[in-house]
Amino acid sequence: MFIQNSQLIVRKVKNMADKKFNILVTNDDGYRAPGIRALVEVVKEFGNVTVVAPDDSRSGMSNAITVYSPLRVKKIKEEENLTVYKCNGTPVDCVKIGISELMDETPDLLVSGINHGANSSVSVLYSGTMGAAIEGTIHGIDSIGFSLCDYSKSANFEHTKSYIRDIVSNVLEEGLSQNISLNVNFPVGDIKGVTVCRQSRGKWMEEFEKRQDPAKRSYYWLTGYYQDFEPEAKDTDSYALENGMVAITPITIDMTAYKEMERIKNWNISLNGTNK
Amino acid sequence: MFIQNSQLIVRKVKNMADKKFNILVTNDDGYRAPGIRALVEVVKEFGNVTVVAPDDSRSGMSNAITVYSPLRVKKIKEEENLTVYKCNGTPVDCVKIGISELMDETPDLLVSGINHGANSSVSVLYSGTMGAAIEGTIHGIDSIGFSLCDYSKSANFEHTKSYIRDIVSNVLEEGLSQNISLNVNFPVGDIKGVTVCRQSRGKWMEEFEKRQDPAKRSYYWLTGYYQDFEPEAKDTDSYALENGMVAITPITIDMTAYKEMERIKNWNISLNGTNK
Repeated sequence: MFIQNSQLIVRKVKNMADKKFNILVTNDDGYRAPGIRALVEVVKEFGNVTVVAPDDSRSGMSNAITVYSPLRVKKIKEEENLTVYKCNGTPVDCVKIGISELMDETPDLLVSGINHGANSSVSVLYSGTMGAAIEGTIHGIDSIGFSLCDYSKSANFEHTKSYIRDIVSNVLEEGLSQNISLNVNFPVGDIKGVTVCRQSRGKWMEEFEKRQDPAKRSYYWLTGYYQDFEPEAKDTDSYALENGMVAITPITIDMTAYKEMERIKNWNISLNGTNK
Repeated sequence: MFIQNSQLIVRKVKNMADKKFNILVTNDDGYRAPGIRALVEVVKEFGNVTVVAPDDSRSGMSNAITVYSPLRVKKIKEEENLTVYKCNGTPVDCVKIGISELMDETPDLLVSGINHGANSSVSVLYSGTMGAAIEGTIHGIDSIGFSLCDYSKSANFEHTKSYIRDIVSNVLEEGLSQNISLNVNFPVGDIKGVTVCRQSRGKWMEEFEKRQDPAKRSYYWLTGYYQDFEPEAKDTDSYALENGMVAITPITIDMTAYKEMERIKNWNISLNGTNK
């Protein structure tokens, strides 16, 4: 079903309703988070669901993997069409161990989230939710990360479900192109539309909070706020979310800056390679 | 000096020899690693060096940030043109705290490495070395990650130094374009040339080693080997390294898959946004 080396994964599923898909679900807020429960409810409609999620919050873990300590996995639940495992690793560890050790066959789809908090703009680079989706894409699995712009534990995910159903259905039917994951962010409150948009440019302005422990040694807490470098742009994920729209951003795992390649070929480097 | 919103950072430094640059150095192998010492030796020639590096190995940390525990920083060394701090955080934490709390002004250049081990192909996504370089780029700082294809602690970095000098010199003189970091990988042994190349497609095939602890509970160690999806391609970083060449790959922090945007705009999603 996955054609690794073609430019496009052509995969028109004719009878969607007849097919039971194998779906891997993970997140970075832990297996008990309301966001992953909402996501499981929706994707259960499409087939057999295996959840492999961190045993607790793993926010900001990006594509991190665990190399210095052993991983432990525990089966939490097994019922018809749903098996749930918790793992002490990162979101990417969960994906790797899910595919390699826990599932009988490579899943048809990986969904990650629903994250409690936005993963738009540069946050895609720090996000454990998107790290997991990117890992799925590396393995040739169609992968989607879902996030809601609400950090609270009591966030309401109800209004996202019909959109998730539609997006998952489109991905299962049409497939994503090679090397591409989807980064889907939901605004809070009423949804005014759905838009396909690019990653906006910006950064997190760090404001470390410096404190002293009882022994008078100082330590820092990382905090900060988001600074948008292009507040006027209307084709970005940040703009979409500020205007009440669902932001769908396809992202690539090929980070090569192709245009820049041409530019730096003119540099003076002491020995010459093939392209000089 | 950094023009955030232009497409290209135009920065021709006329009298390189007269100028003393402020350079931030970090890595993911820890401040005591031979690789970072070799890197500091080279970049000291260009100005004032501030090292902010993890207190121990942080391999595979990608762009991870520390959000659940406080960061501690300790000054290890202060001599002319060189200040060294260790930090208990990730490579990205080191960059953030270096820029925000430890350096008087935003550095002119960030260099990360020299990593003990390759960071070519998809490894760029898991690499703490490259996570730190990407963080520098997000902050508008020209940033380069250096890696040597030798994981051993006794790796010899001597043969990389003249290349690092040339690459750093070119970056300081010409600047990198906006949103672009450099991923530089060195082969072991004799260097046959330098090539500007793209990130090759491949993945790590996981082979979890399952063991039992004394209490008979099972645990896993992550292990694996690299599988190249395009072993015939000659324009990739993997090819360059296998053929004894220095691989320079410019990477972008804009992960948007622009071509895929057009494709998925045709999907059926229940509500319509601006571009439907």
